Amino acid sequence: MTPDPRLSINQATIKYADLATALRVTADAGVQSIGLWREPVNEVGLDTAATMLADSGLRFSTHCRGGFFTLPAGPARDAALDDNRRAIDETAALAAAGAEGSTAVLVLVAGGLPEGSRDLNGARERVRDALGVLAPYAQSAGVTLAIEPLHPMFGSDRCVVTTLGQALDIAADFDAATVGAAVDTFHIWWDPQVHEQIARAGREGRISTYQVCDWKTPFPADVLLSRHYMGDGIIDFASLTRAVVETGYDRDIEVEIFNADIWSDAPEKVVARTAEAFSATVSPYL
Amino acid sequence: MTPDPRLSINQATIKYADLATALRVTADAGVQSIGLWREPVNEVGLDTAATMLADSGLRFSTHCRGGFFTLPAGPARDAALDDNRRAIDETAALAAAGAEGSTAVLVLVAGGLPEGSRDLNGARERVRDALGVLAPYAQSAGVTLAIEPLHPMFGSDRCVVTTLGQALDIAADFDAATVGAAVDTFHIWWDPQVHEQIARAGREGRISTYQVCDWKTPFPADVLLSRHYMGDGIIDFASLTRAVVETGYDRDIEVEIFNADIWSDAPEKVVARTAEAFSATVSPYL
Repeated sequence: MTPDPRLSINQATIKYADLATALRVTADAGVQSIGLWREPVNEVGLDTAATMLADSGLRFSTHCRGGFFTLPAGPARDAALDDNRRAIDETAALAAAGAEGSTAVLVLVAGGLPEGSRDLNGARERVRDALGVLAPYAQSAGVTLAIEPLHPMFGSDRCVVTTLGQALDIAADFDAATVGAAVDTFHIWWDPQVHEQIARAGREGRISTYQVCDWKTPFPADVLLSRHYMGDGIIDFASLTRAVVETGYDRDIEVEIFNADIWSDAPEKVVARTAEAFSATVSPYL
Repeated sequence: MTPDPRLSINQATIKYADLATALRVTADAGVQSIGLWREPVNEVGLDTAATMLADSGLRFSTHCRGGFFTLPAGPARDAALDDNRRAIDETAALAAAGAEGSTAVLVLVAGGLPEGSRDLNGARERVRDALGVLAPYAQSAGVTLAIEPLHPMFGSDRCVVTTLGQALDIAADFDAATVGAAVDTFHIWWDPQVHEQIARAGREGRISTYQVCDWKTPFPADVLLSRHYMGDGIIDFASLTRAVVETGYDRDIEVEIFNADIWSDAPEKVVARTAEAFSATVSPYL
């Protein structure tokens, strides 16, 4: 079976593969695109990573991830902003090294409430402020910052941005080429406004990446790892994918799965299974 | 310390207390109101429960709970509707037996996706249809049906109604005295629209009950039990309570906590601790 040409394997799906392995198994499977994570890239160094990516012949779809800027003013926040600038540089370098059709998109997880804080609005304002600081830097690097709304179960400790509509409200302050949103089925399937917000994201030119994986309960002990292959849970990929396609989105679609069982499987097998699941659940609606 | 006169102990907070114990420890603590659950009421029978409630001198704030009507047409759905009619009858009888100021409010948990279904919109439409069937019955019984939006982490398996705005959209088809919404801090704190939707709920006369408890991570293995005493987590009770009070809501405020550690504690101690937490986190904003 030939994988869908728009499928991109997000490296987190094969978390324990190093960069060389991730690139190899993805390309060997006939998948054309990959989304990378900062840690394995920095393990080999950015220049080497860019060369390896170029040699793989793969497109580069996103870099994961920046963000975590809900801290109040101070050295920790300054360090986080500096780290985001490095992530922007990495994104630009990797997008330039990837095959034609690569996109320079840095996915941002906004961050949770600072320790001891209950000020959700304050944390959300600091996300907006941090984007204001980073947007000019991203713009000159030609990088799009993709605000990723996370499922509200992560709303206190990982990401105070909990809906696509909220991500778009924040992004509205900025140029659409510089700040957009990540549309990830796992995080937004439950939202009564999901269809209208996907349509809005398209109209406003802000779908920076479309990512898919499935939702199933009960959760494992670590709820971060409760993501599944498409088709194994309850998400209706038909209607969500149609909604994204109707906006004119025509770029890569990433599969990003955090799941301890999947991580413990051989990466070749995971990529093959991902490609099959994608063909069965997403491809029919492209 | 005298408990706040508006505090109501939801019986689920002292889950293992039978009805007699729940009424006794609540009244003995100087709390003036209680929310009951169907199982312990039916354990003694409705007439006996009503007499016991009347004898306790407590107000009755809500009955928990009806709902679970996302099933497709068929005997199981019919049985669920019949069960809801019984719950409506119970609510009316208990509200009549409670002290002055009791309210006839039946809390509804809509239900999750039927086994094997991915049709979220269909399930949501069936909630609306079920309310259409039940509303005339509730109206003639003088009972308000309170649609409770649950946190989106429960959106697939327990409650397809995930936001206050969505609950209000559904309620809008019905008379405000008959169908309203439950405003529970645990379920809605994360919502970027929470303040505007609370204000809207007030304007539309649809705050059927205001319930409080706290949110804290990491979750226990059973995420249903991740509720905490107010003050132990990250919810800002000041701003949410002010928002509710500004609508003119002047009735009882329930504390409903599902938490295995709290359940294993002596009910007298739990009620005392609840009253203290309420005075510290909610009372200052009433």
